[in-house]
Amino acid sequence: MSFQAPRGMRDFYPEDMAFRTRLFDVWTATARAHGFAQYDAPIVEHLDLLTRKAGEEIIEQIYAFQDKSGRKLALRPEVTPSLVRLVAARRSRIVMPAKWFTIAQCFRYERMSKGRKREHFQWNLDIIGSDSIIADLEVLATAADALRTLGLTPQDANIHVGNRNLVGEMLHAIGVPDQQQLDVLMVLDKRGKVSDEVLVEMLTEAGVAAHVSPQIMKIFDVRDLEDAAALVPADSPAIRELRTLFDLADRAGVGPFLRFDIAVVRGLAYYTGIVFEAFDTRRRFRAILGGGRYDRLFESLGEPPLPAVGFGFGDVVIKEVLDKTGVDQSPGKDVDVCVGVFDHAHWPEALAVAGALRADGLHVDLALGAVGPNKLFKYADRRNASRVVFVAPEELKSDCVVLRDMTTGSQAAVPIPDITAAIRKQPPD
Amino acid sequence: MSFQAPRGMRDFYPEDMAFRTRLFDVWTATARAHGFAQYDAPIVEHLDLLTRKAGEEIIEQIYAFQDKSGRKLALRPEVTPSLVRLVAARRSRIVMPAKWFTIAQCFRYERMSKGRKREHFQWNLDIIGSDSIIADLEVLATAADALRTLGLTPQDANIHVGNRNLVGEMLHAIGVPDQQQLDVLMVLDKRGKVSDEVLVEMLTEAGVAAHVSPQIMKIFDVRDLEDAAALVPADSPAIRELRTLFDLADRAGVGPFLRFDIAVVRGLAYYTGIVFEAFDTRRRFRAILGGGRYDRLFESLGEPPLPAVGFGFGDVVIKEVLDKTGVDQSPGKDVDVCVGVFDHAHWPEALAVAGALRADGLHVDLALGAVGPNKLFKYADRRNASRVVFVAPEELKSDCVVLRDMTTGSQAAVPIPDITAAIRKQPPD
Repeated sequence: MSFQAPRGMRDFYPEDMAFRTRLFDVWTATARAHGFAQYDAPIVEHLDLLTRKAGEEIIEQIYAFQDKSGRKLALRPEVTPSLVRLVAARRSRIVMPAKWFTIAQCFRYERMSKGRKREHFQWNLDIIGSDSIIADLEVLATAADALRTLGLTPQDANIHVGNRNLVGEMLHAIGVPDQQQLDVLMVLDKRGKVSDEVLVEMLTEAGVAAHVSPQIMKIFDVRDLEDAAALVPADSPAIRELRTLFDLADRAGVGPFLRFDIAVVRGLAYYTGIVFEAFDTRRRFRAILGGGRYDRLFESLGEPPLPAVGFGFGDVVIKEVLDKTGVDQSPGKDVDVCVGVFDHAHWPEALAVAGALRADGLHVDLALGAVGPNKLFKYADRRNASRVVFVAPEELKSDCVVLRDMTTGSQAAVPIPDITAAIRKQPPD
Repeated sequence: MSFQAPRGMRDFYPEDMAFRTRLFDVWTATARAHGFAQYDAPIVEHLDLLTRKAGEEIIEQIYAFQDKSGRKLALRPEVTPSLVRLVAARRSRIVMPAKWFTIAQCFRYERMSKGRKREHFQWNLDIIGSDSIIADLEVLATAADALRTLGLTPQDANIHVGNRNLVGEMLHAIGVPDQQQLDVLMVLDKRGKVSDEVLVEMLTEAGVAAHVSPQIMKIFDVRDLEDAAALVPADSPAIRELRTLFDLADRAGVGPFLRFDIAVVRGLAYYTGIVFEAFDTRRRFRAILGGGRYDRLFESLGEPPLPAVGFGFGDVVIKEVLDKTGVDQSPGKDVDVCVGVFDHAHWPEALAVAGALRADGLHVDLALGAVGPNKLFKYADRRNASRVVFVAPEELKSDCVVLRDMTTGSQAAVPIPDITAAIRKQPPD
């Protein structure tokens, strides 16, 4: 048989699951602390729903298939279309704004360069039904809290915040027609991925006049909000929005994680205002997370308008960043106590002890194959258990079992009724 | 746009997720208490792996598709083939016996009768590499502990335990040739799903002589282990195995959940010994869980032999049983405290208070759209929050906020630095 998972799909052995479990736990706890409720949608969706608002690049990468009734289905490449579907279906019954999150596995058939996978898990967190800047802030604060809880500081990673409307105002100021702006934004999102020369060629292809391209490229010289404010009218709504956002971020305690970055525009057509991406500060990796405001997505799918803001935070890049940053990721122990026997006649007592320890909240492994003290202690060592309870004939005569501390190697006979208390006195680490 | 999920696929709104989260938590905690480590495998596998050992019924129901390189892939209908693949690939490095579990979404294209879905989540728990009866018991004890933790008693649900070798011995005793036994077992598994008349027809089709069928049907008259022992030789290994299992189950504290049931044989070809299925005691629903020993599966996939025992426990039937049994399933609250403002000028203080409460471990929702006391209290009520913190101009003059108990309606001004202590004194339920 083939030992391989399908190309680009990951197996998770227990040693790989330890990180995934911790990451999912942090995502879930952070979302709940901020008052978000969990939802989920099918991994398989109607192809039509997934392609309607997606960019060409995504459509090319969809795993599509037909079911036996000829329905065109696909593995979701992202969860946002499903979110819109769920909210639209119960719009009148949902308490707005809906603060929802999910941890969704998503699939893209990408070329396998640069260690990219064809599936990943993504934490999606959205506020639907509020156009308040507080909603943008709340989403950003949740992202920043998750980074912090994972062990990162503002010295390790930042959330770069831009505003499509600000770039829009700048483009307007240098004479780029409004109907050309989205195409220009999609080109600008490629900066860093292609050379500036290629970028200018792409702008020309997008219909930008030759004398305007250098002015567009100059936008990237903007280093801070003051620079930016100088290039747009004094009453710029985009600048006001950003100033409010950064002021409030300080009050919410996440200011140090955020930085203004004119160059963040995001590659998806549907964003309409604040946009953001988190990167490691040394920029060695792709974006850790990305998101923004998308007030026109419901409209573009034929629904009445509903403002929204949210982000996606994948499980792949954050692992690379944490590994490189040296954040301690040592997993918890799978097993607290290993229970074993001198010979098979002692299983009844071993089972009773194991049951009592489990009822006390401990993770207890029965050493099924490792019968006898030598095999048992060797097995317990390989399972990384810190204690062993050994049921042996001598001690059993006086209703005792042997309790061994695997760290120190010390052991003692303990009466069976006292075993949970004896372990609780010196809890396994 | 279409509001519908693909046929047979479930949406999980937040109110639906509450049960799923609780169920997954119980599965995970119970597995860890018994020393099992979590793994996961791709939802998409090579079609070849999935069909090699599967029965015809499963093959018909597989969602299969080709990727863009022409690879034949499929959504997994079960996780066992992937488990075998993972263990086989690292066989020499894995500490045996491997005690592993996963919570896996599985897909079958079934006819939509009787509310069956085309996907479900399944807790799979297996011990690979031990042929000890203690391994069978450990798997059964984990299943029983999960039922108990979910709120079921032996009066609500039982795990029916059979033994293919026992039925084999009985068939042998009445002259059914060994090479016919598996076919006969597959027919016997249909009992209860089809009439006894149809069962006899199926036996005839399986090559059973007309005078033998009534004797086979008589096997079902066996009510307990003593009945069964009378039909096989005195030194029956299958009877001895069952007696050991039930004796030890009492010591492990799960005896009351188990009952001997000659009729449980399981519908999959690969089981080789103890087999079991859990049912509600009034038999109103399909099996809650099912499993058994499958010592020849590795061999049948071309690998060196490796004994194994395990079960699958789905998320659909258990919900039906818990609903009907009246076990309390009221979900926890999404939101502990709702924080809101008199007007937008007060967001800075509201954000600071929300941050402090979240750092204290509370689930805090900012009332983004509900500005002013009337809207705020109404919103908090709809979100089912038990407390509201209201930032209002009068109280703010003396650095206070209003804390309102939503259950009693009482409220008081509390100094901002004291707010976490005030809430902690009377914690939200």
